[in-house]
Amino acid sequence: MTSLNDLPLRDDLRGREPYGAPQLDVPYALNTNENPYPPSERLVKALGEAVMDVAGSLNRYPDRDAVALRTDLAAFLNADTPGIGLTAERVWAANGSNEIIQQILQAFGGPGRTALGFEPSYSMHPIITGVSGTGWINAFRDEDFGLEPDRAITAVEEHRPDIVFLTSPNNPTGTALPLAAIEAVLDAAPGMVVVDEAYGEFRREGTPSALTLLDGHPRLIVTRTMSKAFAMAGTRLGYLAADPAVIEALLLVRLPYHLSAVTQAVARTALAHGEELLGTVEALRRERDDLVAWLRAEGYRVADSDANFVLFGTFPDRRRVWEALLERGVLIREVGPPEWLRVSVGAPEEMAAFRTALKESV
Amino acid sequence: MTSLNDLPLRDDLRGREPYGAPQLDVPYALNTNENPYPPSERLVKALGEAVMDVAGSLNRYPDRDAVALRTDLAAFLNADTPGIGLTAERVWAANGSNEIIQQILQAFGGPGRTALGFEPSYSMHPIITGVSGTGWINAFRDEDFGLEPDRAITAVEEHRPDIVFLTSPNNPTGTALPLAAIEAVLDAAPGMVVVDEAYGEFRREGTPSALTLLDGHPRLIVTRTMSKAFAMAGTRLGYLAADPAVIEALLLVRLPYHLSAVTQAVARTALAHGEELLGTVEALRRERDDLVAWLRAEGYRVADSDANFVLFGTFPDRRRVWEALLERGVLIREVGPPEWLRVSVGAPEEMAAFRTALKESV
Repeated sequence: MTSLNDLPLRDDLRGREPYGAPQLDVPYALNTNENPYPPSERLVKALGEAVMDVAGSLNRYPDRDAVALRTDLAAFLNADTPGIGLTAERVWAANGSNEIIQQILQAFGGPGRTALGFEPSYSMHPIITGVSGTGWINAFRDEDFGLEPDRAITAVEEHRPDIVFLTSPNNPTGTALPLAAIEAVLDAAPGMVVVDEAYGEFRREGTPSALTLLDGHPRLIVTRTMSKAFAMAGTRLGYLAADPAVIEALLLVRLPYHLSAVTQAVARTALAHGEELLGTVEALRRERDDLVAWLRAEGYRVADSDANFVLFGTFPDRRRVWEALLERGVLIREVGPPEWLRVSVGAPEEMAAFRTALKESV
Repeated sequence: MTSLNDLPLRDDLRGREPYGAPQLDVPYALNTNENPYPPSERLVKALGEAVMDVAGSLNRYPDRDAVALRTDLAAFLNADTPGIGLTAERVWAANGSNEIIQQILQAFGGPGRTALGFEPSYSMHPIITGVSGTGWINAFRDEDFGLEPDRAITAVEEHRPDIVFLTSPNNPTGTALPLAAIEAVLDAAPGMVVVDEAYGEFRREGTPSALTLLDGHPRLIVTRTMSKAFAMAGTRLGYLAADPAVIEALLLVRLPYHLSAVTQAVARTALAHGEELLGTVEALRRERDDLVAWLRAEGYRVADSDANFVLFGTFPDRRRVWEALLERGVLIREVGPPEWLRVSVGAPEEMAAFRTALKESV
């Protein structure tokens, strides 16, 4: 039998394990920051009908540039962050924000170039960077998982990366960045600056989005996803807002017809039902704030969270706690800094189960 | 206003144009080798229902490894090419065969490595190769668009590429390769050999598939798509068959959750209706053979075709003929060797319109 070692795999991939949280069938899945609230029956029906509407021409290729979907996404962002005045020319979409990130690296990174991030952060940033042949530089976040502007500037000036990744709110810590930190990086960076706002809709009152910085910053890219607040993880729809020239650049590397006609139809239908889908955000934020307060009352260290998950610790043997929770049907994520664990914010009954299981597990 | 030149685009992308045939709204679209026959009302309904079945859990991520879909694809290939005995472990799927090709390059190509193809061939092979940071080597096809085994061996031995692309039936020429040519390349190649069979189902009687060579050749990858014979271009579903170790390698580079729950459900439903969808193949082959005969009777040079398109010529000014056809509502493709044009095989009324328009255009 042939083994992976017998194949002419790229040297930098040898010994690697495939990325991904275990996909286990458990009563309480609190490990991938999904939105626990499924689409309503009304939306399920609308999604099926939308697919029937396009299915009659599935023998034809889809709109390669997904203009109607991008128009709808621009309208959504304009409602989310008033005053930014986006149009379809400033919005781009792909199969999940992972593909968005990959396209950015393919256009602005590549062999001989570097990308810099502040870890702990979203672990796909360095992985996709590596697969694209781009060098990865880790500049650490502060002790409290924030990013002090002067330190960020120093890191950017020292390494002069072609791409800087800022994740806000940050995964897996939940930390949102103040606009001052993002502006400082924008001023110092010689290349592109990507602000990954996958969890942007969960940010607390008064935390602004980097979308407000797009005007006057043609090298800023803000990425979003429909997987989290929008409760559409199964649809795989990520998107970005940026200068129209950035989208022109991505057209050079995107795979033609990358977004299926079905994906475009499903995403547009979900956007048309945005009120229902985003109606859960307020409840999830309250649940998150309650969870943070409860964990702190229990004596844990807890990172401030602007996302739909909470990082807490510390555990000298976090694997043991993770396993004890799993034995009780609660799957959380062993990720981020050593001794910390990340739990997604679910529905009230899921969080009750988590609390009970945690008490029994430590 | 910012222009693309103001951005820190990768040097090798500067001056490039986005790939893609013009997407024009014309009466007769014979330019992207789509299957002209749309899904039946029965299938449209089944597709909508399949999406409703999964829509209730779209807040959750899809099966990252798409095991059920891969099982169905293996069963389809086993029926298409009896005796190969494929299982899900030997099949992999992605958003179109372009993404399949990209994953192969990411795993086995990359900076410092090379891929070799025999042009004229599918123009995305060198484009995706370049975007992945892999060097591209063109070894030409023979004058008749075939590939004489000795010449192929010489090219492979001279360049020792990490990946060889063989397209059979070849796009845009329609030429199928005899197994002897593929075996010769497999014996000579130091790395992976990709046989792109996007048009495999259209091959003429007696032309074997490279799937029959999988046993004993762990470095062979055969790619297929549901976009052509399967009449599902809008669904974006490409796939491959290979040794299980090859799929292990691709797991290291694939974007997690790259295939949406909706895509998986739609593709499985289409496979379950394979008899209907592939029922058009026989008619398209006959239409193709009639077209080849007619073009030859009209005095054109025509490449033998095992695909659902025909390459014909020669025209000292092919652009003028292409434009004259377009003025008459017939959109074909200006692609491949200079002085030749490619026309997709459509329904009888589409081909009648093409014939009339061509007579008026030259």
